Amino acid sequence: MAKKVLYRLPKIVDSNGRKIIINKLRKYVVDEDEDFQYERGKVTAEEIKRGGQIKKEKDNFLAIPYDLYDVFGKLKRKAQIITDKDAGKIISKTLITKESKVLESGTGSGFLTARLALTGAKVVSVENNKNHYDVAKQNIETLNLNVNLHNVNINDFETNSSFTHIILDLPKPWECVDSMTKMLETGGFLIVYSTNITQAKTFFSHANDYLHIETVELMERSWKITPTYARPKSQSAPHTGFLSFYRKSL
Amino acid sequence: MAKKVLYRLPKIVDSNGRKIIINKLRKYVVDEDEDFQYERGKVTAEEIKRGGQIKKEKDNFLAIPYDLYDVFGKLKRKAQIITDKDAGKIISKTLITKESKVLESGTGSGFLTARLALTGAKVVSVENNKNHYDVAKQNIETLNLNVNLHNVNINDFETNSSFTHIILDLPKPWECVDSMTKMLETGGFLIVYSTNITQAKTFFSHANDYLHIETVELMERSWKITPTYARPKSQSAPHTGFLSFYRKSL
Amino acid sequence: MAKKVLYRLPKIVDSNGRKIIINKLRKYVVDEDEDFQYERGKVTAEEIKRGGQIKKEKDNFLAIPYDLYDVFGKLKRKAQIITDKDAGKIISKTLITKESKVLESGTGSGFLTARLALTGAKVVSVENNKNHYDVAKQNIETLNLNVNLHNVNINDFETNSSFTHIILDLPKPWECVDSMTKMLETGGFLIVYSTNITQAKTFFSHANDYLHIETVELMERSWKITPTYARPKSQSAPHTGFLSFYRKSL
Amino acid sequence: MAKKVLYRLPKIVDSNGRKIIINKLRKYVVDEDEDFQYERGKVTAEEIKRGGQIKKEKDNFLAIPYDLYDVFGKLKRKAQIITDKDAGKIISKTLITKESKVLESGTGSGFLTARLALTGAKVVSVENNKNHYDVAKQNIETLNLNVNLHNVNINDFETNSSFTHIILDLPKPWECVDSMTKMLETGGFLIVYSTNITQAKTFFSHANDYLHIETVELMERSWKITPTYARPKSQSAPHTGFLSFYRKSL
Repeated sequence: MAKKVLYRLPKIVDSNGRKIIINKLRKYVVDEDEDFQYERGKVTAEEIKRGGQIKKEKDNFLAIPYDLYDVFGKLKRKAQIITDKDAGKIISKTLITKESKVLESGTGSGFLTARLALTGAKVVSVENNKNHYDVAKQNIETLNLNVNLHNVNINDFETNSSFTHIILDLPKPWECVDSMTKMLETGGFLIVYSTNITQAKTFFSHANDYLHIETVELMERSWKITPTYARPKSQSAPHTGFLSFYRKSL
Repeated sequence: MAKKVLYRLPKIVDSNGRKIIINKLRKYVVDEDEDFQYERGKVTAEEIKRGGQIKKEKDNFLAIPYDLYDVFGKLKRKAQIITDKDAGKIISKTLITKESKVLESGTGSGFLTARLALTGAKVVSVENNKNHYDVAKQNIETLNLNVNLHNVNINDFETNSSFTHIILDLPKPWECVDSMTKMLETGGFLIVYSTNITQAKTFFSHANDYLHIETVELMERSWKITPTYARPKSQSAPHTGFLSFYRKSL
Repeated sequence: MAKKVLYRLPKIVDSNGRKIIINKLRKYVVDEDEDFQYERGKVTAEEIKRGGQIKKEKDNFLAIPYDLYDVFGKLKRKAQIITDKDAGKIISKTLITKESKVLESGTGSGFLTARLALTGAKVVSVENNKNHYDVAKQNIETLNLNVNLHNVNINDFETNSSFTHIILDLPKPWECVDSMTKMLETGGFLIVYSTNITQAKTFFSHANDYLHIETVELMERSWKITPTYARPKSQSAPHTGFLSFYRKSL
Repeated sequence: MAKKVLYRLPKIVDSNGRKIIINKLRKYVVDEDEDFQYERGKVTAEEIKRGGQIKKEKDNFLAIPYDLYDVFGKLKRKAQIITDKDAGKIISKTLITKESKVLESGTGSGFLTARLALTGAKVVSVENNKNHYDVAKQNIETLNLNVNLHNVNINDFETNSSFTHIILDLPKPWECVDSMTKMLETGGFLIVYSTNITQAKTFFSHANDYLHIETVELMERSWKITPTYARPKSQSAPHTGFLSFYRKSL
């Protein structure tokens, strides 16, 4: 029973020469074997199965395959997640690929975990909090990804593996730095995600066996674009975190 | 004849209770079969081969494998490149993986191209400018990646393939939008990288067959971190570009 | 019957070694001749008149003179106002002082108008919208400031005066640029506040009689500071506008 | 012997339908009683005295009065100055006017000092460093402003005056906070300018007698505007400082 994403498209009408959008974009996840009922009519299973644009009397629809992007949008969020910009920066800067062996802690809801796994890298992820662990486990299963999840405190985590990348999103990442150093290959990357700058500073003081490459923050601004103007959207720059990049120098 | 990266580590000395860094970090790419001569002595081939920290009388060194990260840092740059933050955002947001089929134009120096290929995706990249094409070709070969490079104007590019993602970094991306639409799967992602906001606005007016998901810019700030304070580095926010994300709705 | 500002101060209690704030800061405007009743007791007129810190059994208060800052916080807001950062930049960059003669349009709710008047400059402000004009008039009277307000379309505004500064916050500032040029002294400043960047670009094309000094935007980030950490507040960077600075070159 | 500012205006020529700017804007400060010689000809004293646009065979000029804005641009800079955006924010937020009594330390090169004095406020400024003091003194004299400058350590500064605003731009502002509290009126503003966020956090821990209103930073982006496009200028966001606003609650 395959799923599809059904968009009700915005409708632009001409009102005395001015273009007005009268319907907002709506997004539904539907079964392609069932008719879709909505307040002003229905889209048939046949139309959904055929896909592409579907023109109805009062509304236009678009049916597209329910793909990874849409699945991601439906994942559960328990803790504050690491967003795509920060995950992307980590992966693109330190070049995480299918050759990489990555250890991450904490797992949180598993959003970074999933993006790491999608690179093809071998991923081990450690989460102390049982609720978060359960949410992450479910999300990773929904995405059908291969990740080694552990519900244990990072300080108690033991392994014979060595890693090329270790990523820490923990309140006190300095507490486990020495055991992390043992698991990381020489020249390997240690990446610390800090929600406040004080954490980043404190970690810096404990990173004696590391080269500090840089600490950055990414600020994202969303822009409103229309045919006639462009401006930053109001309130579009939420704070996420600071990213510190280190290489093991031991 | 394997290569290694040899870092001369910064040296921190105590001067009347104040800690002073007297040597800046220096980075050398060296052959592990040869001694490394420098102004105050030498590091032997044996020491380099053994790797890790190397303590000399006057300086400390670190020898680590010459890996992908170091190779990336040595690639040639001809055109303005798409940086890791923007490449990472594209890959992480639209979830480019080894299942993806990506068309990119222009190739530029091939930095985004390389990061796309490292995901395992099938990558086709089109570049009109012969100089840029040559630089990109050399960079892709240096990285030993599998990319289909074409030295042709995107308007003249023909293919029987269909793509899940098309990424345009062109002065006038709207000129090829109709032929791109033919090559993109329904629901597929069209990503436009615009160095100025006017381009983004003009493209928006030509994107009739697309849902506009969002247009964002990422501003990166680099922080100076020391044991005693943290502050943004001066002049650390260069402008790169605006990222517009569309999905084909036809 | 003098007014005072009465703050109920936050209360920090020790809970097993952790400091917790149990009351949020509250702000009241009170008459100093009347007792202030609140849910857990009262502050007497005598205490309010004496001023400074007032310790009650369950809460601590602070009584300070009701000054300009507090009056500003109570002004009416009808239109989107020009914020203190943008007003401050205009005044500090172009050095508006009591020697200046400033024409502003539109007045909006009068927040920039008021800050201009507080410099001691001669201020003329023109607003087409009657509702906004009324709000601005009331705000300027509340502040007891001397401003020449006109409820007329800027295109119909006539004067024999010349100005050292003209500030435009209008949807289509280019429509009145020629008449503005006539009222502005040679070398005088024309400042255009644009909510979107397209306006700023269009105005630039009409500013033939002007030197364009610069167009900037100020992004403000609010930081959460505590004894133990510092981090940017989430969602703290609303967009306001772009500031274009020109000097008349005719 | 009056001074004028003489601008050589940029020249836009038509080259096969494309507009090209062939001369960059140049700015000269000249005496209006003397001819101005330049590499391709001269502008006569008479032309300069008449002012406005001056069209010569090969170049166009603009002569305008040498005003405060131009004088400001010529002031000496010894220390890192407080920029117009930060000075403007302080003045506009806390509403510094001719009724205000302001104490500032350190004076630095006197840029904030001058802007404070231009509001008409009574300004007292304290600077420990003799070199900075001398520069500031000269700048204040150049601007012909009335400021009370003291070359003394702020910890040794004594006065019988009370202030409505105290502004600290010092490495360790917490060291003088108690003596500042004695000089500040109840409800008065204490504003701390911190170049790093750690200073702001440390000060917060010492500000027991104050309400913390907010700590903000202003990031300024300069935009390149042309008739055909708009984009942020590269490397246009230098870091200046964090502004913490407090009110005395004692």
